[in-house]
Amino acid sequence: MTIKPLDDRLLVEPAEEQTKTASGLYIPDTAKEKPRMGTVIAVGTDEDLQEKVKVGNKVLFAKYGGEEIEVDGKSYKIIQRSDVLAVVEE
Amino acid sequence: MTIKPLDDRLLVEPAEEQTKTASGLYIPDTAKEKPRMGTVIAVGTDEDLQEKVKVGNKVLFAKYGGEEIEVDGKSYKIIQRSDVLAVVEE
Amino acid sequence: MTIKPLDDRLLVEPAEEQTKTASGLYIPDTAKEKPRMGTVIAVGTDEDLQEKVKVGNKVLFAKYGGEEIEVDGKSYKIIQRSDVLAVVEE
Amino acid sequence: MTIKPLDDRLLVEPAEEQTKTASGLYIPDTAKEKPRMGTVIAVGTDEDLQEKVKVGNKVLFAKYGGEEIEVDGKSYKIIQRSDVLAVVEE
Amino acid sequence: MTIKPLDDRLLVEPAEEQTKTASGLYIPDTAKEKPRMGTVIAVGTDEDLQEKVKVGNKVLFAKYGGEEIEVDGKSYKIIQRSDVLAVVEE
Amino acid sequence: MTIKPLDDRLLVEPAEEQTKTASGLYIPDTAKEKPRMGTVIAVGTDEDLQEKVKVGNKVLFAKYGGEEIEVDGKSYKIIQRSDVLAVVEE
Amino acid sequence: MTIKPLDDRLLVEPAEEQTKTASGLYIPDTAKEKPRMGTVIAVGTDEDLQEKVKVGNKVLFAKYGGEEIEVDGKSYKIIQRSDVLAVVEE
Repeated sequence: MTIKPLDDRLLVEPAEEQTKTASGLYIPDTAKEKPRMGTVIAVGTDEDLQEKVKVGNKVLFAKYGGEEIEVDGKSYKIIQRSDVLAVVEE
Repeated sequence: MTIKPLDDRLLVEPAEEQTKTASGLYIPDTAKEKPRMGTVIAVGTDEDLQEKVKVGNKVLFAKYGGEEIEVDGKSYKIIQRSDVLAVVEE
Repeated sequence: MTIKPLDDRLLVEPAEEQTKTASGLYIPDTAKEKPRMGTVIAVGTDEDLQEKVKVGNKVLFAKYGGEEIEVDGKSYKIIQRSDVLAVVEE
Repeated sequence: MTIKPLDDRLLVEPAEEQTKTASGLYIPDTAKEKPRMGTVIAVGTDEDLQEKVKVGNKVLFAKYGGEEIEVDGKSYKIIQRSDVLAVVEE
Repeated sequence: MTIKPLDDRLLVEPAEEQTKTASGLYIPDTAKEKPRMGTVIAVGTDEDLQEKVKVGNKVLFAKYGGEEIEVDGKSYKIIQRSDVLAVVEE
Repeated sequence: MTIKPLDDRLLVEPAEEQTKTASGLYIPDTAKEKPRMGTVIAVGTDEDLQEKVKVGNKVLFAKYGGEEIEVDGKSYKIIQRSDVLAVVEE
Repeated sequence: MTIKPLDDRLLVEPAEEQTKTASGLYIPDTAKEKPRMGTVIAVGTDEDLQEKVKVGNKVLFAKYGGEEIEVDGKSYKIIQRSDVLAVVEE
């Protein structure tokens, strides 16, 4: 199955919450919206977005953004460009 | 009868809710707006939209988006582009 | 008397509510805003709208959109482009 | 005295309310905002508006739009383009 | 002292309220926002506005728009273009 | 220390409140938002703004706009273009 | 680890609050949103922003803007362009 996000959306596989990533990134409890880490599985049809974010990138995104889906028991999120805070290179 | 959505709308035939699709896509209860699957029956007059989404595509769309109509007992939804999260190829 | 809607408005003669149209279109009670059917009597001055919707078209429009007027005892609605969901060819 | 509306406004002399016009136009009580009829006395400086609406036109406009003024005991309204539903030719 | 309004603002000297102007303009009590008359003392830096409204023009403006200042005991208002209903030639 | 406002902001040194300026400008208590006088210390990076407002200009600005900072005991405000009502030449 | 902010965001290392900076900048308690100082660690992909703000710049930003993250125990904020009040050269 292939999920192709429309327009400026991204399909992301969220990482486990509250773990400090191998490279030391940690989201403090005091963070208002506690951004989450995840891996980009698919990028939407928006050409400008396709230049800035690539499949396989690790991204930091607003936790409450986007919609949750499951494929074969694995959890994904379809988020919007405005939910993405940064691309993280570990 | 032909229903031609205006501007950036789409006519979609929603799939049955809560079934895991043949290809394993499943919408968890925890999903905020529980997106739904459906098949595109007609695409609006917006040319850009016509390039991105085709009749026959399976789409994942925001459950509470759009308007419900019935034709010959069959239920359809007229949704807007902003309701469409992704095109799904099974 | 001729009523010429201004800009992106349309003059529509609404069909009777709650009847299943000859061609089987029916608006279920569960529909949030219960869209209505109607016939386009006049199209506004917006040139793009004039390309997409023609006098005589049957349209499906948001029930609570627009303003109600009567001419010689007949009821009409002046609605806006954003109220029109689709053009319906029976 | 000449009143020159600025930008996309119009100076309108409202007709008496609740009378059925000579040509049969009548605004039912059920109309949400009960649009009113009036005659255009002056058109604002917006060139596009000047093409669409002329001095002397009869217009149907949203009742609660615009500001009320009196000149020599006669009542007028300064309304905005978005208040005008249609031009009416009797 | 010279007061130069910035952008699309105007410096206006409001006329006394509730008097019928020499030329018969009167604002009825029923007027929602009771527009006021005033004389334009200075026009902002917005070139388009400078074409439409000149120093010395009498204008009708929304009563609650703008900010009140006094210079040497005389009361002025700094209003915005959107507060101006019309230019009035008596 | 140099403070360089970003985009359409300005660094302003507010004048003492409630004093009538040497040139007679006074803000009446009835003024809704009681605009304040101040001297422009730095203009933001917005080129259009740089044309309209210069360092050293006296400006009248909305009292509640902007952010307060102190440098070496002196109070300043970082305001936005939309807070500036007028440039005042005494 | 490299954190690359997306679009018009910036990665900033906030300075300690409530200290008067070496060069005398101090944020009074009365300041509505008490802006904070910080050092720019990374600038987003927005080209215009990249011209205006550079890595290493000290910036004054709205305290409640952006998202908090920690990398190797050090606290950072991902803020947006609209949160930045000024670049400060000490």
